[in-house]
Amino acid sequence: MAGPEDFENHCWKDIVTPEILTTYEAYVRNTFVGTRPALLAIDLYNLVYKGGANPPHEITPDFPNTCGVYAHEAIEPTRKLFTACRAARIPIFYVTARFSPSRVQSTRRADMPLVEEDFEIHQAFTPQSGDVVFRKERASAFFGTPLVAHLNQRDVNSLIVCGESTSGCVRASVLEAYSYGFHISIVEECVFDRSELSHKVNLFDMHHKYADVMKLDEVCAHLASVTGKATKVA
Amino acid sequence: MAGPEDFENHCWKDIVTPEILTTYEAYVRNTFVGTRPALLAIDLYNLVYKGGANPPHEITPDFPNTCGVYAHEAIEPTRKLFTACRAARIPIFYVTARFSPSRVQSTRRADMPLVEEDFEIHQAFTPQSGDVVFRKERASAFFGTPLVAHLNQRDVNSLIVCGESTSGCVRASVLEAYSYGFHISIVEECVFDRSELSHKVNLFDMHHKYADVMKLDEVCAHLASVTGKATKVA
Amino acid sequence: MAGPEDFENHCWKDIVTPEILTTYEAYVRNTFVGTRPALLAIDLYNLVYKGGANPPHEITPDFPNTCGVYAHEAIEPTRKLFTACRAARIPIFYVTARFSPSRVQSTRRADMPLVEEDFEIHQAFTPQSGDVVFRKERASAFFGTPLVAHLNQRDVNSLIVCGESTSGCVRASVLEAYSYGFHISIVEECVFDRSELSHKVNLFDMHHKYADVMKLDEVCAHLASVTGKATKVA
Amino acid sequence: MAGPEDFENHCWKDIVTPEILTTYEAYVRNTFVGTRPALLAIDLYNLVYKGGANPPHEITPDFPNTCGVYAHEAIEPTRKLFTACRAARIPIFYVTARFSPSRVQSTRRADMPLVEEDFEIHQAFTPQSGDVVFRKERASAFFGTPLVAHLNQRDVNSLIVCGESTSGCVRASVLEAYSYGFHISIVEECVFDRSELSHKVNLFDMHHKYADVMKLDEVCAHLASVTGKATKVA
Repeated sequence: MAGPEDFENHCWKDIVTPEILTTYEAYVRNTFVGTRPALLAIDLYNLVYKGGANPPHEITPDFPNTCGVYAHEAIEPTRKLFTACRAARIPIFYVTARFSPSRVQSTRRADMPLVEEDFEIHQAFTPQSGDVVFRKERASAFFGTPLVAHLNQRDVNSLIVCGESTSGCVRASVLEAYSYGFHISIVEECVFDRSELSHKVNLFDMHHKYADVMKLDEVCAHLASVTGKATKVA
Repeated sequence: MAGPEDFENHCWKDIVTPEILTTYEAYVRNTFVGTRPALLAIDLYNLVYKGGANPPHEITPDFPNTCGVYAHEAIEPTRKLFTACRAARIPIFYVTARFSPSRVQSTRRADMPLVEEDFEIHQAFTPQSGDVVFRKERASAFFGTPLVAHLNQRDVNSLIVCGESTSGCVRASVLEAYSYGFHISIVEECVFDRSELSHKVNLFDMHHKYADVMKLDEVCAHLASVTGKATKVA
Repeated sequence: MAGPEDFENHCWKDIVTPEILTTYEAYVRNTFVGTRPALLAIDLYNLVYKGGANPPHEITPDFPNTCGVYAHEAIEPTRKLFTACRAARIPIFYVTARFSPSRVQSTRRADMPLVEEDFEIHQAFTPQSGDVVFRKERASAFFGTPLVAHLNQRDVNSLIVCGESTSGCVRASVLEAYSYGFHISIVEECVFDRSELSHKVNLFDMHHKYADVMKLDEVCAHLASVTGKATKVA
Repeated sequence: MAGPEDFENHCWKDIVTPEILTTYEAYVRNTFVGTRPALLAIDLYNLVYKGGANPPHEITPDFPNTCGVYAHEAIEPTRKLFTACRAARIPIFYVTARFSPSRVQSTRRADMPLVEEDFEIHQAFTPQSGDVVFRKERASAFFGTPLVAHLNQRDVNSLIVCGESTSGCVRASVLEAYSYGFHISIVEECVFDRSELSHKVNLFDMHHKYADVMKLDEVCAHLASVTGKATKVA
């Protein structure tokens, strides 16, 4: 949980002007993790780590889908988040892209040759028994998948979100989750993008409109506080 | 239509760095209006014009939902767009917010007292006979409305989008339209936001991922070129 | 609740053969009302009561949307169901048709002249303060309405269903509710149709595939047993 | 195409009474195949052919998902339909069940042990290059799949439907297709169920409310008449 005094204490501080903060004052509130959460891990597939921990613009000609250094910087925080979620025994859902010649495209990016392994989950976050993995063709984790049915059947009422890209599949999934009526907590250190500008502005937008952007430490502390307690999951 | 050389010639030029443009090079393409378009006018309701043509941060305490000067600057371009669409006899769909004590909220903004007239369409764009107006409770024009059924039944395969806010209901609607398989053209001068930063970055995001951001003149010229020709609408 | 021995003890008994029952044996189970239910009252609008308590085929030329005697026979049981649900203070949602010249049609029935009052809720079930009423254009209560968002936001995990027609909007709504992951209880005496054959076979289909068809007395007894207890609704 | 005089000339004739036909008179109309159709083949997987061409109730204890003789009788007509659709070069979409321990269930039937091969398409209808196959967890071909996006992107405005079961996944898919605004033609000889009663009544319901139930010969004749002509698919 974070109080109103920390509501704007996030990565967008250096680009959002005081005038904008004034305009958005009515959105300031407490942030929190929901009571019956699941982890939603978005597009943590091999393709976005390609080319190593380099700035995307330096490697994008060879690795056009990479998030480069931003992807690699998020590995350790995301590991910690997974560990905390597994300890709290909350349901874990992954989405990744469907690899198929017939798939519709999730964005208007020009085509490039891909292989099946590109869309497998990165080995740092390998799904375990009991986790659920969906394949999607569009940006949102909900569009063209039965995610909403699984969430309802497991009595989930809120999501903890990590993955990429902040301005693409994360934003689309958070928007649709909010539309469906779920509370959403986005873990700041565990989402990333190929553009820092889009990353920051999309986090700002989502934080004010649809979700609670929270620090990894806050989320882990909360999960630790409920671990061991009866987390009823129907 | 605009060619690849003009692909980045838009309002975001002053904030997007050369490095970002390099990263997004694979998205560069021609832009165009689809073959069987409809106009989608998003949230052109009275509330966003309140307080006059002033900077939002100066009037937001009194008019918390206003887009102020940005809303007012878009009135004339949007009038022109409506005129061109009516002349071309393409279907026109409006969405506005549902006014109801029981509605779910489209964003996490704190509540404020509203009246029914706040969500009526601004008089500059009053719906005419044959237009369709939907009321929504969420950001996307598709969520909780039968818009997709109407588009399919009228054989629409593409949208021309205007309205507000760029980072809210416009983005949400464009995202879902793209997910459903529609081509989307966003008219740059006819969408607006209460934050210029969010406006520009969201246009940049949508232009690269889901839609063609186009100039009013281009769109009007295209519509004029097809006006009078048989625009078959089943 | 009803045990497996009563699973086929319903109105379809006189038309379902022993061979069919053998084929469907694997579906036999206990039936029950869910833990956090809402009442969903489907299309209880004036139009279906027109022409009085007569057989539909006798009055359909003059009242083409009527369910006649079947509608009227369900009035008293449905009143009792409403009373029990209000006493248990569970959320109550109505859907009715949207009256509009531009609406898409919910079935392929030929057009007929209608007035706004036709789609108002029958006076026996007038919505009260706190109830939510949605207007729809298609058969399902979920399609083109924000019902799923309301259910999730009020922490509802199951539905008690009444209304009409069994083979039309009830079946469509039950199907989509099941797809979304909700448990569904259909109150046998409180759903109706213009054809008894379709009524019985659709109840049979839904009972085996998607929902628990239950007797009014069972549902009321269950609601009475939880009335007064803390029905937590977030 | 079939005229109004043949509107009720279908398999339900022996169980629908004259009174019911009077009640439904307003639905009588011409039936037809849409202008830009795709074939939707629903759940033609191995499981439903298990146990041979026997009455379902005789083999259901050993083969609990079989449609027995009804499945086998539909093989030859369905082959002809596929041949006609391939000759007309219309897009072909299959749906089948997702085989996964974590899947939600498409109906309330009790669990049974299954293997992956159970949900592969029967060899009489093996998908060919260019066909699209979706895996679903719910009854409708649209729920939890990107089917609607594919239909829109390929400029499809209507469906020709075959497969099973009439009262389950066929009905659910037809209902949702109609909600989305597609015209639907169901090929009578090419849909089947484990219960003849449910088969007939569900065809009756769909024919009056959402779709055109048509004879195989009619559909094939229509497809032959357009074969060779430019079937524009964007």
